[in-house]
Amino acid sequence: MKKVTIKLNKNKYNIFIKKNIIKKIPQLHKKNFHGRKAFIITDNNVAKYYLKNLLQDFQKLCIVTNFYKVKPGENSKSFSCVQKICDALLKDNINRDDIIYALGGGVVGDLTGFISSIILRGVKFVQIPTTLLSQVDSSVGGKTGINSFYGKNLIGSFYQPKAVFIDVNTLKTLPFSEYISGYSEVLKYALINDINFFKILKKNEKKILKMQTAFLENIIAKCCKAKANIVVQDEKESNKRMLLNLGHTFAHAIEAELNFKIRHGEAVALGLLMALKLSFLKKKINNNDFVSVQKHLRKMKLPTSLKEISNRKIWSATSLIKKMQKDKKINKNKLRFILCNGIGSAYISSSIVEKKIVETIKEFSQ
Amino acid sequence: MKKVTIKLNKNKYNIFIKKNIIKKIPQLHKKNFHGRKAFIITDNNVAKYYLKNLLQDFQKLCIVTNFYKVKPGENSKSFSCVQKICDALLKDNINRDDIIYALGGGVVGDLTGFISSIILRGVKFVQIPTTLLSQVDSSVGGKTGINSFYGKNLIGSFYQPKAVFIDVNTLKTLPFSEYISGYSEVLKYALINDINFFKILKKNEKKILKMQTAFLENIIAKCCKAKANIVVQDEKESNKRMLLNLGHTFAHAIEAELNFKIRHGEAVALGLLMALKLSFLKKKINNNDFVSVQKHLRKMKLPTSLKEISNRKIWSATSLIKKMQKDKKINKNKLRFILCNGIGSAYISSSIVEKKIVETIKEFSQ
Repeated sequence: MKKVTIKLNKNKYNIFIKKNIIKKIPQLHKKNFHGRKAFIITDNNVAKYYLKNLLQDFQKLCIVTNFYKVKPGENSKSFSCVQKICDALLKDNINRDDIIYALGGGVVGDLTGFISSIILRGVKFVQIPTTLLSQVDSSVGGKTGINSFYGKNLIGSFYQPKAVFIDVNTLKTLPFSEYISGYSEVLKYALINDINFFKILKKNEKKILKMQTAFLENIIAKCCKAKANIVVQDEKESNKRMLLNLGHTFAHAIEAELNFKIRHGEAVALGLLMALKLSFLKKKINNNDFVSVQKHLRKMKLPTSLKEISNRKIWSATSLIKKMQKDKKINKNKLRFILCNGIGSAYISSSIVEKKIVETIKEFSQ
Repeated sequence: MKKVTIKLNKNKYNIFIKKNIIKKIPQLHKKNFHGRKAFIITDNNVAKYYLKNLLQDFQKLCIVTNFYKVKPGENSKSFSCVQKICDALLKDNINRDDIIYALGGGVVGDLTGFISSIILRGVKFVQIPTTLLSQVDSSVGGKTGINSFYGKNLIGSFYQPKAVFIDVNTLKTLPFSEYISGYSEVLKYALINDINFFKILKKNEKKILKMQTAFLENIIAKCCKAKANIVVQDEKESNKRMLLNLGHTFAHAIEAELNFKIRHGEAVALGLLMALKLSFLKKKINNNDFVSVQKHLRKMKLPTSLKEISNRKIWSATSLIKKMQKDKKINKNKLRFILCNGIGSAYISSSIVEKKIVETIKEFSQ
């Protein structure tokens, strides 16, 4: 088993990475939270594979459980879903000592974390991420949230889980495209500050495509450590944590433009490459680096141009830039981008001429 | 001007108490938050008296402002109100550096604090409490929240304001019964840990009834200090802060029983007296103390029996106790009360026999 510890000022918690670790959770609950109820929030897809067994394992140990299923997809990150589940939890007599479990991908994790942070002004919660994206990114670091009409994750909180259990075997029940879309966030860590990691990923493309368990456990642990390292330095995203948004200013705008009818990870793949193109236009990286990442993304079957993600023929740079301006990370109305000084060396830039953004979008529309 | 400082681990902020201080707020905004927008959340009643002038004063200094009005009353502490205002703020391009102002009583303060804590994962906010209850209690200490079908403040967060501005002159535009209902929370501090304060209050009943400004400024400052002192020791209510719930277990149950068609302060007046009766039944205080508080409440024109607050003839102890069990403060399904070892000496008790609670309720139903 691999263990990554997140040591924050007031909170300290562990991420446990091991295949089939889900089966251990009820025993650990009994040991650590004796006598407390377990409330599981999940979605209909994930429920099919894991909910029944998990409930049975809790019940065998006489732990009172209840569960709440939401529809899969971003639409469940809504106020109406939050209200519905809060009411159900209160109806089921949740109290401050009970534990809420998030069993699922990023949507379930973000929604559950947010609910946990506001119900009774805060109830402990545990993450059981079941997609690659949530295992390496959204379940770690304590960002929770729901969407607004005006954009993704515009409502939320910083709220840390009590523990994260990562079972790599859950990836095997995902559709391949869902699995691989999460890989963009793995690649992101390499591009931010670890060129050697990038080399390892390039060398092991086959293992990634084949979901080789041991290799996956290694890279997931590496990503969690990388994220932990940044989050510990800047939990509330006032500075360094912004680096984790590499590729995300483009990605969020693309998602909004397509009414979120695209996988987040696919938008991030494209966003990463666009951020590298912008870095290239600003003469921060050379063309070889850009092409190297582009080729790698293609091998991973991830999109490298706007036309691959939608039938839309014309993309409006003006409209995409307007969407970027709605982003949370806007500082005094100035667009801020994460760029790269070469692979493995990301930095925050607020001095981008709009012309270069337009040029980048145009290059990717062809 | 009186100033009370709240020094929390990560936050430090000041409460400023002075008549007509509202007029100074735009200048202070300009000085401290140069170039940032000011968003004011208020209710229709308060807006009538103060909104127009406040907006003008901001505009004179070229500060961009927007305002959002809710209906007065507890019904505005709802998910639908939160969603509506969040959407409006996002539409008006709020960003993380802007400031949200809560102009109003407890409802506006609780709602605004909650919205501020979740929009963009946290935007700074400032309290301008305009009722006695919010000036001495709800605006201080960072508890925010909305109501659920299952009870009051069951959804919320701990989120501290950047500053609190208390203008005692705002009390003069309140109906007398609204003003005096907030007095229950003043009395609460005396009962918790300050017998001398209780003596001062008894001696100055006329000044309180007449809203004598200088005296009010003094007692408000005293209450804010008392609350600050407790909150600093236990921000998240794991222990000592529970003392501030003196009278509130009864009060919340009464409010729920009456579908919240009663002023919170009136329910608290009664709740305080019921907590003292329960303390008396547990032989923790003598009858003289009980009668002394009862007489004082009568002088203050606050209710001292259940029949004074509703036409209902029969009160069901079972139903009230069931409501108490929905309270957030429940620990492992055990009812917890704040009782008094004499006036000015509150403590947490979890060893209450249900019979004594029933007896208390019966005494107050007569």
